[in-house]
Amino acid sequence: MRELVPSLVRESDSKIVLLVLDGLGGVRTAGRASELAEARTPNMDQLAAEGSSGVHTVVGPGITPGSGAGHMALFGYDPITYLLGRGALSAAGVNFALRAGDVAARVNFCTVDDEGHVLDRRAGRISTETNQRLCTMIMNEIQMEAGIEVFVVTERDHRALLVLRGLGLSADLTDTDPGITGVKPTFPTPRSNEATGTAALVQSFLDQVRAILCDEQANFMLLRGFDTLRPIEAFPNRYLLKARGIASYPMYLGLSKIVGMDVSPATAGWMESVEDLKANWYDYDYFYLHQKPTDSAGEDGDFERKIAAIEQVDQTIPEIASLGAGVICITGDHATPAPLKRHSWHPVPFLMWGESVGTDGVDRFDEEAARHGAFGYQYAKDLMAFMLAAAGRLATYGA
Amino acid sequence: MRELVPSLVRESDSKIVLLVLDGLGGVRTAGRASELAEARTPNMDQLAAEGSSGVHTVVGPGITPGSGAGHMALFGYDPITYLLGRGALSAAGVNFALRAGDVAARVNFCTVDDEGHVLDRRAGRISTETNQRLCTMIMNEIQMEAGIEVFVVTERDHRALLVLRGLGLSADLTDTDPGITGVKPTFPTPRSNEATGTAALVQSFLDQVRAILCDEQANFMLLRGFDTLRPIEAFPNRYLLKARGIASYPMYLGLSKIVGMDVSPATAGWMESVEDLKANWYDYDYFYLHQKPTDSAGEDGDFERKIAAIEQVDQTIPEIASLGAGVICITGDHATPAPLKRHSWHPVPFLMWGESVGTDGVDRFDEEAARHGAFGYQYAKDLMAFMLAAAGRLATYGA
Repeated sequence: MRELVPSLVRESDSKIVLLVLDGLGGVRTAGRASELAEARTPNMDQLAAEGSSGVHTVVGPGITPGSGAGHMALFGYDPITYLLGRGALSAAGVNFALRAGDVAARVNFCTVDDEGHVLDRRAGRISTETNQRLCTMIMNEIQMEAGIEVFVVTERDHRALLVLRGLGLSADLTDTDPGITGVKPTFPTPRSNEATGTAALVQSFLDQVRAILCDEQANFMLLRGFDTLRPIEAFPNRYLLKARGIASYPMYLGLSKIVGMDVSPATAGWMESVEDLKANWYDYDYFYLHQKPTDSAGEDGDFERKIAAIEQVDQTIPEIASLGAGVICITGDHATPAPLKRHSWHPVPFLMWGESVGTDGVDRFDEEAARHGAFGYQYAKDLMAFMLAAAGRLATYGA
Repeated sequence: MRELVPSLVRESDSKIVLLVLDGLGGVRTAGRASELAEARTPNMDQLAAEGSSGVHTVVGPGITPGSGAGHMALFGYDPITYLLGRGALSAAGVNFALRAGDVAARVNFCTVDDEGHVLDRRAGRISTETNQRLCTMIMNEIQMEAGIEVFVVTERDHRALLVLRGLGLSADLTDTDPGITGVKPTFPTPRSNEATGTAALVQSFLDQVRAILCDEQANFMLLRGFDTLRPIEAFPNRYLLKARGIASYPMYLGLSKIVGMDVSPATAGWMESVEDLKANWYDYDYFYLHQKPTDSAGEDGDFERKIAAIEQVDQTIPEIASLGAGVICITGDHATPAPLKRHSWHPVPFLMWGESVGTDGVDRFDEEAARHGAFGYQYAKDLMAFMLAAAGRLATYGA
């Protein structure tokens, strides 16, 4: 069944700008307010004062989202229906064109001892150049049974992509990454009968990798997130929006590509992302800009650095607002509270600014103020409908 | 399809304590605040100040829940999917092991006049001893057709359990309790074709009961809530939690057993329940403690007694908090406002306290304060996910 919102979409001249501060959401603790509440954000506060605020649950009550799920929701795709695995994300990030039937997984090169126990899950964070050399070695020496192709493609640092291609493969396998050191990687275990053959293939591949890499520091690999290509209705068709994703990290460009957006080159950071926005303003209807350091700082437990990453975005708001968007939405794809040092399940504040949004008496942008905003509690997947509506891009429903 | 939250469950050392004050929710009226707002609860107020609050809708907007539905929701089972009838609840309460195919119903012994009109729906609240004598009489004298077994088991006061056992039975029957006096009990009416035979069996049973009890004050019985055993995924498997239910009333121990928890002996009341919690602290991951007098007082319209029952729990909070739980959640299974003298549909306040919950500026525990808490409006069935999340027992969703 076609979904309601896409069925109501119509065109308009009004542009939509979505600013995603990764892991924006925080929590108040006994000692401090949240990062967003403590950050000096006069420009976001002004947009909040002129527009309306709310908080969103990213996936569901109590659920801690990964970045893939958070972004799919913000793009208006139900993150439960449209679950993306690491394999598909990695493939999109390195521009590998997955085909129907391919099985993809995220590779971490690692170091194991003589008995095969994991010593370092990231092999001392080997360089991208070393990673490329190892991938070439494996590609040259690996021998799979007839009809099966293997691709090992460098992502960055210790990360790579594995793709198996052939008939009858299944991604219904467990990860081999034990998640800790001092133990052996787990065997790739089929979670259903159809995956039995694929599990054996992966095991044969891993046995060969172990032999090929035996003299390297990064002498083995861990596999996570076995995945296949899943059909997704392209964002530009779904919403009649010519869309551009702008980010510095490949994964977020990959996410944009998965949903069919055009993407920027990987930018050097937020300031360059804003330049890309300005340079491409007249060619698109929808822009998604991604700020990564808010999340990285949160995961490091670095409260002040997360504040700085928020304030960096704030300083560019006047420049962005002056471009003449119909709607600007500022939010995060999940919470990464510095006191918790990880993604969390807490709701994420958002503000929606635009001519037809209306204002709600909330005059600053933070978690507590946003809870009292006109939008109240929403699900992340529904923000897209509000953006479209505020841009005059949704027809009236029902006579 | 497996549900999302159970699919993300992982183990942790963090313990969860759920305190259920039965019928906790109240309403503000022209004259008074709610019972919870008027109660002196310095300890719950402190947990609210350190944690976060919200209100929950137990089943759905405007729906007044029974205790079974309210508890199933708090245990994380959708109360609409997992509806429990009175028959199954009664069976669990008296430790009767229902088998697949059994039909169970709640019995109320009653008094009827010579024409069969109901004079007293509770037969003057006969003693449990009288009840036992009547059940024995019936069991000795009743004669059912070949292949059909009948069990009549005393619960307490005027209440008993009826179980029919045999092939081809159906619980799709209407209650015989007219709900009022001065009229005859209704016939057990089949609601589908499959229940026609069972309806006739029940009528034959009732005709005999009327004859067997003709010389008693409690000279007949009313039947409610025909039900069968329904498969439920056990709580300890579903959430990877070794779980203990602690209560003074058999029905709540029965509810705990239905979902597969271990249970305490029936305690003498709240103070003994807290002793059971302390004595078993190291053997379980999850504890559910039930306080009944809040509900009984509400149903009696006794505002002051409901306050006292709330304050009794409050006084034990420091002792409970000192045990070192990862998460404490305090709430009710529904509202029983004393001014209404019955269960009601009103939302129920809850507070969630724990290291990773965060605080929200709400510094007391009552209906109005809770509405402004960080959790906002939730469904009761989703509280379990928040408890698991706050205890670090849910993995990240989506890469």
